[in-house]
Amino acid sequence: MDYYSSQISSLIEQLGRLPGIGAKTAQRLAFHIICMPTEQVEHLAESMVQAKKNIHYCKVCCTWTDSEICPICTNVKRNRKMIMVVENTRDLAAYEKIGKYEGVYHVLHGAISPTLGIGPTDIKLKELMLRLQEDVDEVIIATNSSLEGEATAMYISKLVKPTGIKLSRIASGVPVGGDLEYIDEVTLLRALEGRIVL
Amino acid sequence: MDYYSSQISSLIEQLGRLPGIGAKTAQRLAFHIICMPTEQVEHLAESMVQAKKNIHYCKVCCTWTDSEICPICTNVKRNRKMIMVVENTRDLAAYEKIGKYEGVYHVLHGAISPTLGIGPTDIKLKELMLRLQEDVDEVIIATNSSLEGEATAMYISKLVKPTGIKLSRIASGVPVGGDLEYIDEVTLLRALEGRIVL
Repeated sequence: MDYYSSQISSLIEQLGRLPGIGAKTAQRLAFHIICMPTEQVEHLAESMVQAKKNIHYCKVCCTWTDSEICPICTNVKRNRKMIMVVENTRDLAAYEKIGKYEGVYHVLHGAISPTLGIGPTDIKLKELMLRLQEDVDEVIIATNSSLEGEATAMYISKLVKPTGIKLSRIASGVPVGGDLEYIDEVTLLRALEGRIVL
Repeated sequence: MDYYSSQISSLIEQLGRLPGIGAKTAQRLAFHIICMPTEQVEHLAESMVQAKKNIHYCKVCCTWTDSEICPICTNVKRNRKMIMVVENTRDLAAYEKIGKYEGVYHVLHGAISPTLGIGPTDIKLKELMLRLQEDVDEVIIATNSSLEGEATAMYISKLVKPTGIKLSRIASGVPVGGDLEYIDEVTLLRALEGRIVL
């Protein structure tokens, strides 16, 4: 990229290393940043540095937070006896957007994947088991319905069952509004197996 | 976004304001940044601030550069008597990637667009006319073949013609490797009109 001066090349190259940002998008972003008001650029840069510095795992549920314990775990209105296990903070956010779930969460930060070399000790499973020593009524497994998510769900169910705590898995099936002919076979089979008597 | 702590929300919100970055991508980027090594985050942040601070228009061709005059304009091997007029620095980069053009450039930073309220004085046309007072052999108009690009090309040709300098426009037609049946009618018509006798 010697047709760009070095500072532009360097910025484009760094932006291009972010996930989902290709070479063209990195160029577009770099020139957009150059055209942004100085204080906005400084604010964004500072936010990135501060987020990196101050954000860590919640001491209770392991989600990302800038306080010792996250807003959900400190909320007295939430039912701490019901724990939904999710793969990451974005999945937690997806459920929070609905605004119907009143329990708390546990964020694994990954899923078991032998192909990627991610084992049970690489995700926040030990932390989950520690939480279950307290008074818990139900554990809801909400890992993805991918191969890794299913393997993780299976592993968790084996760990939790001996404790006698109620254990559930979110339903798999046809997405609401989904057109049957476009849905894959495995999902259709799950929808059939999980059918509900009316 | 009260399910995220305030620093995460703020970072996601700012990333989401960048062009082409939707809410989901902004979330993904924010969590990626939190997981990046500290020095990489600091380096990226610093690059953004420095680029904003030091990058300005080249005094000759108006492209973005961190030096007074850009690497292309200072290169003695380039033919300064041939000026290719492009809409922005990304278009300049697209031609430089080919490595076949030996002239210099002039970057307009936009195109004339009455609907967007962008007039001839809002782009770097005055700077182009000043350059033409020196010894120039040819001006190649390489604005986009959009409505705005064509209007800009027309406007430039009206300005340049009285000077007697050779004036050309890059060819419009069927992209190489393009399948005729998927190409729009205007392009097909242009390809026909611009046909070359073999």
